[in-house]
Amino acid sequence: MKFSQLFLPVLKEDPAEAQVVSHKLLVRAGMIRQVTSGVYNWLPFGLQVLRKVENIVREEMNRAGAQEVLMPMVQPAELWQETGRWQKYGAELLRFTDRHEHESCLGPTHEEIVTDLFRRNVYSYKQLPLNVYQIQTKFRDEIRPRFGLMRGREFMMKDAYSFDENKKSALESYATMRDAYHRIFKRLELDYRMVLADSGSIGGDHSNEFHVLAATGEDDLLFDPNGDYAVNVEKHDAENCPVAEDQLEKAKGIEVGHIFYLGTVYTDPMEVKIQGQEGNLQPVHMGCYGIGVSRIVAAAIEQNHDEHGIIWPMALAPYHVGIIDLRPDDEACKQAAEKTIAALSEKGLTYAHDDRAEKPGAKFATMDLIGLPWQCTLGPRELADGLVEWKNRRTGERTKLAVGELPAELSNAMAVAA
Amino acid sequence: MKFSQLFLPVLKEDPAEAQVVSHKLLVRAGMIRQVTSGVYNWLPFGLQVLRKVENIVREEMNRAGAQEVLMPMVQPAELWQETGRWQKYGAELLRFTDRHEHESCLGPTHEEIVTDLFRRNVYSYKQLPLNVYQIQTKFRDEIRPRFGLMRGREFMMKDAYSFDENKKSALESYATMRDAYHRIFKRLELDYRMVLADSGSIGGDHSNEFHVLAATGEDDLLFDPNGDYAVNVEKHDAENCPVAEDQLEKAKGIEVGHIFYLGTVYTDPMEVKIQGQEGNLQPVHMGCYGIGVSRIVAAAIEQNHDEHGIIWPMALAPYHVGIIDLRPDDEACKQAAEKTIAALSEKGLTYAHDDRAEKPGAKFATMDLIGLPWQCTLGPRELADGLVEWKNRRTGERTKLAVGELPAELSNAMAVAA
Repeated sequence: MKFSQLFLPVLKEDPAEAQVVSHKLLVRAGMIRQVTSGVYNWLPFGLQVLRKVENIVREEMNRAGAQEVLMPMVQPAELWQETGRWQKYGAELLRFTDRHEHESCLGPTHEEIVTDLFRRNVYSYKQLPLNVYQIQTKFRDEIRPRFGLMRGREFMMKDAYSFDENKKSALESYATMRDAYHRIFKRLELDYRMVLADSGSIGGDHSNEFHVLAATGEDDLLFDPNGDYAVNVEKHDAENCPVAEDQLEKAKGIEVGHIFYLGTVYTDPMEVKIQGQEGNLQPVHMGCYGIGVSRIVAAAIEQNHDEHGIIWPMALAPYHVGIIDLRPDDEACKQAAEKTIAALSEKGLTYAHDDRAEKPGAKFATMDLIGLPWQCTLGPRELADGLVEWKNRRTGERTKLAVGELPAELSNAMAVAA
Repeated sequence: MKFSQLFLPVLKEDPAEAQVVSHKLLVRAGMIRQVTSGVYNWLPFGLQVLRKVENIVREEMNRAGAQEVLMPMVQPAELWQETGRWQKYGAELLRFTDRHEHESCLGPTHEEIVTDLFRRNVYSYKQLPLNVYQIQTKFRDEIRPRFGLMRGREFMMKDAYSFDENKKSALESYATMRDAYHRIFKRLELDYRMVLADSGSIGGDHSNEFHVLAATGEDDLLFDPNGDYAVNVEKHDAENCPVAEDQLEKAKGIEVGHIFYLGTVYTDPMEVKIQGQEGNLQPVHMGCYGIGVSRIVAAAIEQNHDEHGIIWPMALAPYHVGIIDLRPDDEACKQAAEKTIAALSEKGLTYAHDDRAEKPGAKFATMDLIGLPWQCTLGPRELADGLVEWKNRRTGERTKLAVGELPAELSNAMAVAA
């Protein structure tokens, strides 16, 4: 992709409304633009990253045997009344009436919809276990939307729902999802922790959160560096902690995933029964499993940045390499760009080519800001010796290589990821 | 994919609420389920088809140089007030107030949002032409939602918006989109017509519609079978028609695409100016380009079905081949299934394997209903001679082939598509 053809409005200054670094950098790097409080446009560069997250989540959900569906954003009040959440859910649930005066809401979550879908279409234990998921735009009318994508009103979630014939089987479904989440966060190349968590307002009696570690995280986590114990302080109970208090380490986390065993919290009020193995009618045990897809984009930046801008992990980078072309009108630079692009394409690596007529300083600053993992600078002086300069955005390490040669670490990156 | 693991609730009977064949078959084939009037769940089988349409549209939009963005579903009233549409747009625009009493609406279209995005980020003719698009859930509060996906309230659209420095360039952008639309509908393998159309409420003075031809279409089209003239009757003007009236043929169409040259209908009231080539501030010319992604799924069925069910074109089929396993517990059937699956996978063909313990009649009926383009039946009798039976769902033609051999037409299908 050429910069001259890309809608990438980068900014030199931090936007006045942004308080946290991810919000500042998302706006400055031309990834998002605010439409109204807590509601954003995703620009091409930002959407590329969102899709990378989405695809990794989708692949691992499919691998774990979950089936993708798409439920609606607009939901009828009747289903929420059945579970009592129409009354209980706070003002975050955006309620409205349509032209026929039917009460409806914008879905912040889909337990009611999916449970209704289940009870109308599944009748027997033979059809279980069932796990369906969607990746979808959700709305929660936050009282004080803030921190950009970290606490927006319209956002993208992956939400999955499992149905089982008993608690034992439901806990197996839960374990399958927990394992899938570990694979997802490893593939996203983020430093994360799974911790014990409160079940909160969703209900149920078993739950874990997944946090991206970052100094700016809103949650306090405690974990045993030598063992498995890890907990959100909200859930921490010094009396029952298996580790001595002074052995626990502290960390700040950004919650990006939450999994729950729900039991029959939704299926009981909605009167969902299936035929069991002995022909009897029996209750159905649910689990629900969320991932904040758009929040992960922000959390990744909170964890991966420096004073010059974003530093994308390879798995999330909108493009793997930025080509900084110091003289796009120069014949040697033109040929070097072509040769570099051919070498990248052969390895399945993607690039963004800064072919604009800008000063070198501006080009270097932009490329550092948008954070592609590798930079390749083409200039007439080095090209006279047949060389180009590569820079690893994270380490800052620079190497001069022959035109068309790739740094070994980059060259091997796709093979490692596959 | 195995039927025993797929959430595919097929129905023997037509749903009472369905009037048109696509609605009946979408529900019976386990593709969609209604949540509330005009609002549907997409089940795994239906979502697969929706994604096929989405991917073809995305690939051709990218090829045409358009850049993908994602704008919000919730939109602030202020922008709609600038263009006057907050007042002019009828009750189809679902308006509501959020918890802070801000007036908002659910987006049925995004001219205001994209024009605002443009004016805040693009300042010079050097950044043009620009074409951005999204594939997104939209909401229109239809007074009488009907015909399933044909006239729903929540639906999926591709909407694109072009920005140019003058009318000449804008009409070139329009032509690029028109060509992209022809490629899209050819790749979707649908019988369609592009016709001249009224610009309607969106404004502007140049527009074409794309219709999928189907006996059940709501629009009347007239076209010259020997020439290029084709028109929606709404737009037909006998006085100025270049062809003798009696040479025109009639057809029924389902509108699935609409492209407009908008001129400055939105940029004028929203006061959008860019710096022109002479340093002057000048107006910006827009075009907008819609495709009804979810409606295409219904239109494809209206055009491709028989009394037994759906007949998917290869490009839209959720899976290319249905394997009807008459005795999933039989060792010969098991081996034949494995060999057939291996042969399909080698060619990049996908399959759904009916491995359920059902009677043959039910299996044949289900496979005809869901409409996969090819069926392969495995039964002990033919397998004693090393044979399986292949059926082309569209022609009904049957052939007996050795296990693991594919019909030539199927075997070549992917090479042709690529």
